[in-house]
Amino acid sequence: MDPQRASELAEVYRKELQESVIPFWAEHCPDPEYGGFFSCFDREGNLYDTTKNTWVQGRCAYMFARLCDEVEARDEWLAAARRGIDFINRYCFDEESGRMHYTVSREGKRLTRPWTIFSECFAIGAMCQYSKVTGQSKILGQARQLFDQTLELANDPTLDSCSYPEDSQSISHAIPMILLNVTQQLRQAGCGTAYQPVADEMLQRIFNLHLHPEHQAIFEYVAPDGSLLDSPMGRVISPGHALESMWFVLHEVRDREDEKLRDQAVETVEWSIARGWDEEFGGILYFLDYEGSPSPFLEWDMKLWWVHIEALYALLLAHHLSGRDDLLAWFERVHSWTWEHFPDRQYGGWLGYLHRRGDIASTAKGNMWKTFYHVPRGLLLIWKLLEEIASGTSG
Amino acid sequence: MDPQRASELAEVYRKELQESVIPFWAEHCPDPEYGGFFSCFDREGNLYDTTKNTWVQGRCAYMFARLCDEVEARDEWLAAARRGIDFINRYCFDEESGRMHYTVSREGKRLTRPWTIFSECFAIGAMCQYSKVTGQSKILGQARQLFDQTLELANDPTLDSCSYPEDSQSISHAIPMILLNVTQQLRQAGCGTAYQPVADEMLQRIFNLHLHPEHQAIFEYVAPDGSLLDSPMGRVISPGHALESMWFVLHEVRDREDEKLRDQAVETVEWSIARGWDEEFGGILYFLDYEGSPSPFLEWDMKLWWVHIEALYALLLAHHLSGRDDLLAWFERVHSWTWEHFPDRQYGGWLGYLHRRGDIASTAKGNMWKTFYHVPRGLLLIWKLLEEIASGTSG
Repeated sequence: MDPQRASELAEVYRKELQESVIPFWAEHCPDPEYGGFFSCFDREGNLYDTTKNTWVQGRCAYMFARLCDEVEARDEWLAAARRGIDFINRYCFDEESGRMHYTVSREGKRLTRPWTIFSECFAIGAMCQYSKVTGQSKILGQARQLFDQTLELANDPTLDSCSYPEDSQSISHAIPMILLNVTQQLRQAGCGTAYQPVADEMLQRIFNLHLHPEHQAIFEYVAPDGSLLDSPMGRVISPGHALESMWFVLHEVRDREDEKLRDQAVETVEWSIARGWDEEFGGILYFLDYEGSPSPFLEWDMKLWWVHIEALYALLLAHHLSGRDDLLAWFERVHSWTWEHFPDRQYGGWLGYLHRRGDIASTAKGNMWKTFYHVPRGLLLIWKLLEEIASGTSG
Repeated sequence: MDPQRASELAEVYRKELQESVIPFWAEHCPDPEYGGFFSCFDREGNLYDTTKNTWVQGRCAYMFARLCDEVEARDEWLAAARRGIDFINRYCFDEESGRMHYTVSREGKRLTRPWTIFSECFAIGAMCQYSKVTGQSKILGQARQLFDQTLELANDPTLDSCSYPEDSQSISHAIPMILLNVTQQLRQAGCGTAYQPVADEMLQRIFNLHLHPEHQAIFEYVAPDGSLLDSPMGRVISPGHALESMWFVLHEVRDREDEKLRDQAVETVEWSIARGWDEEFGGILYFLDYEGSPSPFLEWDMKLWWVHIEALYALLLAHHLSGRDDLLAWFERVHSWTWEHFPDRQYGGWLGYLHRRGDIASTAKGNMWKTFYHVPRGLLLIWKLLEEIASGTSG
C-alpha cells in the first residue's frame, strides 16, 4: 500500500475508534451500580435487557484494558476493566464445577449454565491484558490457572454436546482458533514461551484438520482425524471465521522463520475472501455450504459487523506480509462496502446485522454477542498497522 | 364468504394439495430402504442430508395416515405411515429414559439426545391417526401410554433447560398449545372425553397465563403465574404461533356452548394478524418484540411457510364461526400474498423461507423442521372448510 494512502486511512480508522466507537460503549456499557458490563442496546443506546453474558464481561474488560495499553492510559478505562474482572471473579464462576456460568443477572445472580469454553477464554484475555497494563502478576497467575483448567475442558469432545458420546465425531475450528489466540495473550502478558507447545498444537489442528487445501477452504466442523463429514454441518464454511483465524495465525508465524506456514495462511485469506464475497450485492456472506446446498443457518446470507472488520484486518495484514496486490485490492473493496454500511453516523458505534442487500436487519447496537470487542479491536489493529505501513517500517 | 367464492377457492386448495404438495413429498420423503422419512431436500428434491429428525418421523406418519382418512385410502400412504411408526418404535426411543432421541441416522443409530416433548407429541399424533384409519386399538393404547408419560415430562419446568433450576421462571406457550392439540387427536381416535380435563387445563393455561387481553397479545414466554417478564424473551410475540394456537382452541370450543371462549379466540385471531402483518412488504412477520426493541431472533422479519398456512386456516375458521367481515378481508389479503410467494410452480411443494421482501432466503424445500406437515394439513383443513361453506353447512 502506498504510504500516503496508508496515512490517510490510518486517520480514518483512528478517528472512528476514538470519536465514535469508544464514546458509544464507554458511555453505555459499564454498569456503575453493580460493576461489569451491559451489552443489550438499541441503535440509540437504550438498554433493552440487563442480563449479563459472561462472554461480554471478559470481552469488554479485555478491550478497556487494551485501550489503556495501546491508546491512552485513562483512569476510567482502567477502572472499567478492573470492575469487569471483579464482577467475573465475584459472580461468574460456578462454585461446584469451577466453570463460568453463561449468563448472570445484572446483580450477579446465576441464570444459565456453563456452555463450552468461550466465557473462560475471554476472561483469561481480560486478565492478561489487565496484568500487562498494570504489571500485577497475581492476576496473571489466575489467568494461567484458568487456562490450564480450560485446556482440560477443551479436550473433552462431549463437553456440553447434544450428541450421544459415541457420536461425538465432529470437532470445531472455533476451539483451536480461540485457544491459539489465548496463548498469544498469555505470551504478551509475560508468560514467554511457556505456552508455545499449546500454540503449536493449535496451529497443527487448524492446518492439518480444518484447512483442506485441495478444496481451498477451512471447514468449521470435521471428523477428529480431519476428514470431511457428509452433512450440512460438515459442509459449513464461515468466511469471517476463517479470516479471523488466519490473522491469529499470521501473528503467530510473523516472527518465526516459518515461511511455508505464513504463505499457506496468506493463501487461505485469499481463498476465504474470494469464496465469501457476495458478487451480487457486495459484502461478505455469513455462512456457505461448500456444495451449495441449503445452509442449516437461516442467517447465512446476512452481512455481519464482525465478519467485515475481521476480514479487513486479515486482508491488510496478509497484504503487508506478502506484498500481494490482489489482497490490497480485496482490502479496498471490503473497506468501501464496510464503511458504506456499518458505521452508524447518527448514534455512534457500528450496526451489527444487515440483510444481504445491505439494509438494516436488526437495530441492535449490542446484544449477548455484539459488544465492545470486534470493532474496537479491529479498528485499533488496522490503525496501528496502517501507521506502520505509512512510516515505512517493514512487516 | 360467498358460496361461489368458497367453491372456487376450495378447488384451488384441493388442487395444490393433490397435484403439487402430496406428489413432491410422497415421491421423496419415505425412505424405501430403512423405513421412516427423509426431510432435507433442496428446491428440486435432491436429498442433502439423510439425518432423521424424530419430529419429522411423527409428523409425516401422521400426515400420510390422515390423508388415508380424509382424502383417499391409498395403500402407499398407509404403508408409508406404517413404516414411519415402525421406524419410531424400532429406533427412536432411548431405552434408558423412555424418551425419544432428537435425531437418529438414516439407519436408526441414535445421534442427538432427547429435547423437550415435541418428538413424543408428534409420535402420539401419528399413532392416533393410524389407529383411527386402521381401527387398530393396540396402537392407540401405545399412544395413550406415551401421552401419560409425556404429560409428566411436560410438568417439569426444568426439562432440558439451560437455566439453573431456581431461575426456571418462564413457561412456554408451545407446551399447552401442542398438548391441547394432542388431546384432540386422542379424542378423534376414539378416546372419548378421557382427556377432557387435560384439554381444559391447557385452555386455561393459554387464556389465563399467555393471553393478555389488556395488551391484545399472546406472550410466548411468561412467568409461571402468567405475569409478564421484562426481558427480550418475555416480550416475544409470534403471530404465527398465536394464530395456530387459536385454531386449536376454536376446534375445542366449536362444539361446546362456550361462546365467551370462542369470542375471545376470534378476537385474538384478529389481534394477532393485525400485529403480525407487515404493512411495508406484505406477509406476516415471524417474531416481534412487544415494545419494538430489537428481537433476539435474527430471522424475526422473515416470512415463513408455516406461519402463512396456519394463519389462513385460523382466519377462515374464525370468520366462519363469527361471521366477521374483517376476518374475511384478512383471509383474502393473506391468501393473495401467500399464493403469490410460497408455492413452487417449478418443482412442486412450497418454499419455506423468504426474506422480508418476499424473495427466497433459503432454497430448502425441507429440513429438520419443514417437512410434510403444516402445508398439507393446512391445505386439507382449508379445502374441507371451504367445501362446507360452499355447501351452506352451518359452522
